[in-house]
Amino acid sequence: MNKLVAVGTVAFDAIETPFGKTDKILGGAATFIGLAAAQFEIDTALVSIVGNDFPSDYLDLLSNKGIDVSGIEIVKNGKTFFWSGRYHNDMNSRDTLVTELNVLADFNPVVPQNYRDAEIVMLGNLHPLTQLSVLDQMDKKPKLAVLDTMNFWMNSALDDLHKVIKRVDVITINDEEARQLTGEYSLVVAARKIHEMGPKYVVIKKGEHGALLFHNDNVFYAPALPLEEVFDPTGAGDTFAGGFVGYLAKTGDTSFENMKNAIIFGSTLASFCVEKFGTERMINLSKAEVHKRLLQFRQLTQFEIELT
Amino acid sequence: MNKLVAVGTVAFDAIETPFGKTDKILGGAATFIGLAAAQFEIDTALVSIVGNDFPSDYLDLLSNKGIDVSGIEIVKNGKTFFWSGRYHNDMNSRDTLVTELNVLADFNPVVPQNYRDAEIVMLGNLHPLTQLSVLDQMDKKPKLAVLDTMNFWMNSALDDLHKVIKRVDVITINDEEARQLTGEYSLVVAARKIHEMGPKYVVIKKGEHGALLFHNDNVFYAPALPLEEVFDPTGAGDTFAGGFVGYLAKTGDTSFENMKNAIIFGSTLASFCVEKFGTERMINLSKAEVHKRLLQFRQLTQFEIELT
Repeated sequence: MNKLVAVGTVAFDAIETPFGKTDKILGGAATFIGLAAAQFEIDTALVSIVGNDFPSDYLDLLSNKGIDVSGIEIVKNGKTFFWSGRYHNDMNSRDTLVTELNVLADFNPVVPQNYRDAEIVMLGNLHPLTQLSVLDQMDKKPKLAVLDTMNFWMNSALDDLHKVIKRVDVITINDEEARQLTGEYSLVVAARKIHEMGPKYVVIKKGEHGALLFHNDNVFYAPALPLEEVFDPTGAGDTFAGGFVGYLAKTGDTSFENMKNAIIFGSTLASFCVEKFGTERMINLSKAEVHKRLLQFRQLTQFEIELT
Repeated sequence: MNKLVAVGTVAFDAIETPFGKTDKILGGAATFIGLAAAQFEIDTALVSIVGNDFPSDYLDLLSNKGIDVSGIEIVKNGKTFFWSGRYHNDMNSRDTLVTELNVLADFNPVVPQNYRDAEIVMLGNLHPLTQLSVLDQMDKKPKLAVLDTMNFWMNSALDDLHKVIKRVDVITINDEEARQLTGEYSLVVAARKIHEMGPKYVVIKKGEHGALLFHNDNVFYAPALPLEEVFDPTGAGDTFAGGFVGYLAKTGDTSFENMKNAIIFGSTLASFCVEKFGTERMINLSKAEVHKRLLQFRQLTQFEIELT
C-alpha cells in the first residue's frame, strides 16, 4: 500500500440542475478526490485551505472517512472558496454563476511533514504554480504524480501549466481540453503530443462516452456506465481521479495493466457521484454497492471471442 | 451457418473530405453490408437495384467475394442511384450535395426464391415500406430481422417506420436518431422506449464513441478503436451492420452474449472502412488484418480486476 497526498479545493458549491437546486453544500476538487480515495482505506492526506466559515462537521466527516485533514489550513477571518453553477438540460454544459476565490486567492499549500514521502501525489485542479509547489515539497520525486487541470489555465497560465505538465507522470484532461492543449482534433494524435510534453500516461475523459488511457502505443478505453439519468455531474471528474489514484495507492502497482483497473474503479465511482447532488452519494456509498457496480462494468464491457 | 439476405442501395457515391475528393465510386448501404458480411464466407444475397450505367466490373467484384447478386435488378435505360456529400473538418457531420434517386424511385425489391428461407434478414436504410416488402416475401418469420434506418424516415414516413420497427428483432440507429425517435435524452430510457416499439435488441451507434447494445436490462458497450485519422466515414454504419449480421449468420447464435461478439466484429470492420475512400479498404481487407485488429480490440477493452 502507498501513501497518497492530494491537493485541491475544499469549497462550498451551490448547484442548479434541471432536477433542482442546492444551497451552499460541501464541494471542491480535493473533497471529491478524498472521498473517492477513501473507498480504498488507504493513508490519504488532503492539502487545501478553508475559511473559518467552514463547518467543523465537514472536516469531521472527512476525518471519519480516514482522511488526514491536518494539511487543510483554516484561515481565521477568511471565507471559504465558493462556486455556483447552473447545468443545462443536456447536463454536458454549465454556466458558472458565481466564483468567489476568498481564501483560495492566497493559498500556499503546505504538505504535512509525514506525507512528504508519499508515493502518490494527486494534483487537483488549481493554478499550475500552486500544483508545482506541492511537488517541490516532496522529499523526493514521488513514484507517481498525477495532474488534473482545465482549459481555464490553458487560457490564463499556459507557460506555468507546461512547467507542471513536464513534471508529472499522468495527466487527466477532458477531450476538448486535450484538443485545445495540442491543437489536434484526433485524440490519438493529441495524446502523442501530450506524451512529448512530459506525461508517460495520458487519461482523456469523455464524460458520458467514457475515458481513454494512452501509454506510448498502448490504448485502453473504458466506457462510462450508461445511466438512466445524470442528477448532478459536479465532482465526477475529481471522483474519477480519486478512484484512479486511490486504487493505484492501494495496490502499489503503477503498471499500464493495473492502470486499466484503476480507470475502471475511477469510472465506477464517478457513476455513483452523479446520482445525487454534490458529495451526498459518495458520503453514503457502501463497499457492497461498489462491488455490485464493478460486476456491472464487467458485464458491460467484457466479451469472449475466441481468437486463435 | 445461417443464410443472410440484405436489402439496401447499390449506388454511386462522390465524396469530399478534408483529405480529398472522389469521382463517382462504388457505394450504397447494401454494398457495404455485403462486403463486411463477405468476411465471414457465409451465403449472402443482396437485394437492390441499379441502372445500366452500373459497371459489370462492380457486380463481378461482389460476386468474386462470394456474394449472390441475382437479387440486384438491372434497369435498362435506367440510371443508378447517386449520392454526393461533403464532410466537415471534424468528420462527424456532412452536407449532402446531390441526391439523384434515379432507379431507386421505383424500387420493388424481389428476394430471390432460394433466399426466402434465409434465417437472417438485414434491412439496410431505405423507405420503411420497401423494407417491409422484403420481410413479407420471406417464407416464414426469419430467425433474426435487423433494421437500419435514419432520421430522414422519421421526418417523412414515421407511421410506416413504426410498422417495420414493430416487426424486427434488432434495430441499429445512431444516438441522435434514438433521441429523436423517442424524445428522450438518456439513451438508457430511449432504448427502453424502443424496446416497447418492438425490437428486443437495440443497437445505438455513437460513431467515434462506440456502440451500445441493449436487451431488456442488459447493456453492452463496445468502444470504437481510437483512430489517428478518419479518412472517409462513408459506409461505416453499414459496414458495422454487415459485420454484425455476418458474424451472427456465421455462428448461427443470436443470443445476447454472442451479439456482444457481433458488435465487436462490426466495430472492427467499421474501423477499417473509414481508412480509405468508399469501399476501397473493405475490398482489399485480409483475414489476417481483421484478426490482428480484433486482438487490438481485446487489448483496448479487456481488464482483469479480481472481484470476489
